[in-house]
Amino acid sequence: MSTAITPSRTNVAAPGSEGIEVPRGLKGVVVTETALSDVRGLEGFYHYRQYSAIELAEQRTLEDVWHLMLLGELPDAAARAAFDARTAPLRRLPEPLRAVLPALAAATAPAGPLAALGPALSLAAADRGLRPLYDTAPEQRLADALFATALVPTVLTAVHRLQHGEQPVEPRADLSYAANYLYMLTGREPGPAEARAIEQYLIATVDHGFNASTFTSRVIASTGADLAACLVGGLGALSGPLHGGAPSRALDTLDAIGTPDRIDPWIRARVLAGDRIMGFGHPVYRTEDPRSRMLRGVAEGFGGGLVEFAVAVERQVLAILAELKPGRELHTNVEFYAGVVMHLCGLPREMFTPTFAAARAIGWSANILEQARDSKIIRPAARYVGPAVPQPVPPA
Amino acid sequence: MSTAITPSRTNVAAPGSEGIEVPRGLKGVVVTETALSDVRGLEGFYHYRQYSAIELAEQRTLEDVWHLMLLGELPDAAARAAFDARTAPLRRLPEPLRAVLPALAAATAPAGPLAALGPALSLAAADRGLRPLYDTAPEQRLADALFATALVPTVLTAVHRLQHGEQPVEPRADLSYAANYLYMLTGREPGPAEARAIEQYLIATVDHGFNASTFTSRVIASTGADLAACLVGGLGALSGPLHGGAPSRALDTLDAIGTPDRIDPWIRARVLAGDRIMGFGHPVYRTEDPRSRMLRGVAEGFGGGLVEFAVAVERQVLAILAELKPGRELHTNVEFYAGVVMHLCGLPREMFTPTFAAARAIGWSANILEQARDSKIIRPAARYVGPAVPQPVPPA
Repeated sequence: MSTAITPSRTNVAAPGSEGIEVPRGLKGVVVTETALSDVRGLEGFYHYRQYSAIELAEQRTLEDVWHLMLLGELPDAAARAAFDARTAPLRRLPEPLRAVLPALAAATAPAGPLAALGPALSLAAADRGLRPLYDTAPEQRLADALFATALVPTVLTAVHRLQHGEQPVEPRADLSYAANYLYMLTGREPGPAEARAIEQYLIATVDHGFNASTFTSRVIASTGADLAACLVGGLGALSGPLHGGAPSRALDTLDAIGTPDRIDPWIRARVLAGDRIMGFGHPVYRTEDPRSRMLRGVAEGFGGGLVEFAVAVERQVLAILAELKPGRELHTNVEFYAGVVMHLCGLPREMFTPTFAAARAIGWSANILEQARDSKIIRPAARYVGPAVPQPVPPA
Repeated sequence: MSTAITPSRTNVAAPGSEGIEVPRGLKGVVVTETALSDVRGLEGFYHYRQYSAIELAEQRTLEDVWHLMLLGELPDAAARAAFDARTAPLRRLPEPLRAVLPALAAATAPAGPLAALGPALSLAAADRGLRPLYDTAPEQRLADALFATALVPTVLTAVHRLQHGEQPVEPRADLSYAANYLYMLTGREPGPAEARAIEQYLIATVDHGFNASTFTSRVIASTGADLAACLVGGLGALSGPLHGGAPSRALDTLDAIGTPDRIDPWIRARVLAGDRIMGFGHPVYRTEDPRSRMLRGVAEGFGGGLVEFAVAVERQVLAILAELKPGRELHTNVEFYAGVVMHLCGLPREMFTPTFAAARAIGWSANILEQARDSKIIRPAARYVGPAVPQPVPPA
């Protein structure tokens, strides 16, 4: 066969094409249209469908926003009641998953609860017989999305408890998503301030434009795979350090600084050493992250020493960055106050990123359902740049 | 906040950009350079690094090709011995995974062994403490890739046996990858013809240009996630019906036709009804799929009634397609003889796609290691096309 092939160094998979050159990492390349969300980095603004995400977090429940993202509109009272009645029972673990969860928790103990979430969703999907999106009608896709997403808080809190030698707490259908999340974690019904603060965090992080995990979920959805496979792929991308979204790091920074008198020298030393200060800077926003501003307000509603210290650190970091990195527009990002708020609500640090993932699972599932309406597989090309082809295979 | 925002219908995430328009599904868009593989659809040719993949399948072992893909060159005798000595012990299940495997097999029984593979790899990674690629030196990344890939055949065969009420068979380090695969499945050492035939199938399907699962693995790798998270994402994409690679479908077609006298009417009726004939047509090749040609030769080496029937079906399908769909260039693809060869080697149909996944895991891992050398996250944009933004949030 090799005699028929002309050696060549460049080659693109698409037949008859030399390949289309675009910026590295597909930056700015429009891969799809969406009616779900967008980020306006220059304006410090992001939205879910036609509404400011921050206004939604200030004025609505997580269930309302979940309904908005998946069903396209905010619910009225009747739709809200129907949605609650549909989703609350889905919080309960299916029996085969319940049976395997202690083993999953044990196997993932070195890595924490988030490592068990993907396997748990895959097993729940296999047991339920989730069909490929490609073979599934829209109403069933929605049912699959609600099924998988409603399980996430239950799995995460159950695994966390199992990894700490405690029995899982059964979900309660009479509590909101957010209150039930804290309840399953601690076994105690949370105060209204804590439940509302976590709810506002969850709403604010449901979606955020076309990030890498959302894109991953949509690529897998474009192959027609089942909904859980798409979510698991999104979880994989979320776990990458370049994805962002690890609010515990900013809180670790507050701990490391320790006391107000140490803020200035600690921050200066880090900035002068070229280190990144966790909780500051964002690839899209050229303003303060609107999530940070809202969460600062939530934190200030609680008050107390940690909040005062965080506000002081933020003020001094911004002043030092403006002095030492003029023109760089390094503003506070979502991680900074997210960690403070989650801590104030009683979440242990190892549940910070899992909590983010629980919110984002709602956004991923909305994106997956939107992608499933497009029958075109997402499959770009690569350019071969290795040695000239073909070379004869040398004898073994 | 909303008063500062001008309502707008179009919006792209990248600040200061209107977004770059490209063909749907990113078709032909060059997302990366690669030295690993390429497909020349017009020539009916594909290669791994600088060698014809078919020549490799004809002349080399799977271990040689694995070495080529991950380490960049075909091994000499000393390198081969070192590679075998390094990879064969990795076939054994780590204890925590062994303990949880019966539960995984039970939970995924409705879906088959492939549904357990992603969870098993995630659990093995969590237990081993796999670090993000982003934080991992190249030598450790290679070790992680060998660890995860070597486990795949053991997990798949053990789950298959558990799902049929049989105990897993311990891997043997003295057998080749391919022979050990068949051995773990059946508990009997395979004949040399069967072991070599499966090895040739595995080599021929290790990689195939920039397909959707390979792309998915690389997107996750670009976030810096751990190697198993990237493989699991690839598995998710592979499970999509639009990805291709389900050789059991073509064999099911042979069964459905049944006897030589029924070939002509059966195929004609399907083609006239607009149905796709499984095993024919490919999105890239405009010629016969070179994998199909090689696997036909492998099948003919076995001979027998099924092979003669398959050859007769292929000949008549091609004649009928040329008559009824002139100019469409619908040729035999890899699925057609892959199913025949796997059947001749004693694989049950439910292991056909898992066997494909085992081969492709080697290709994915090579792609993941290549992507990990690039620090740029793959994150395209989406264009918001929903209602004008922002609308005021209506009262709840």
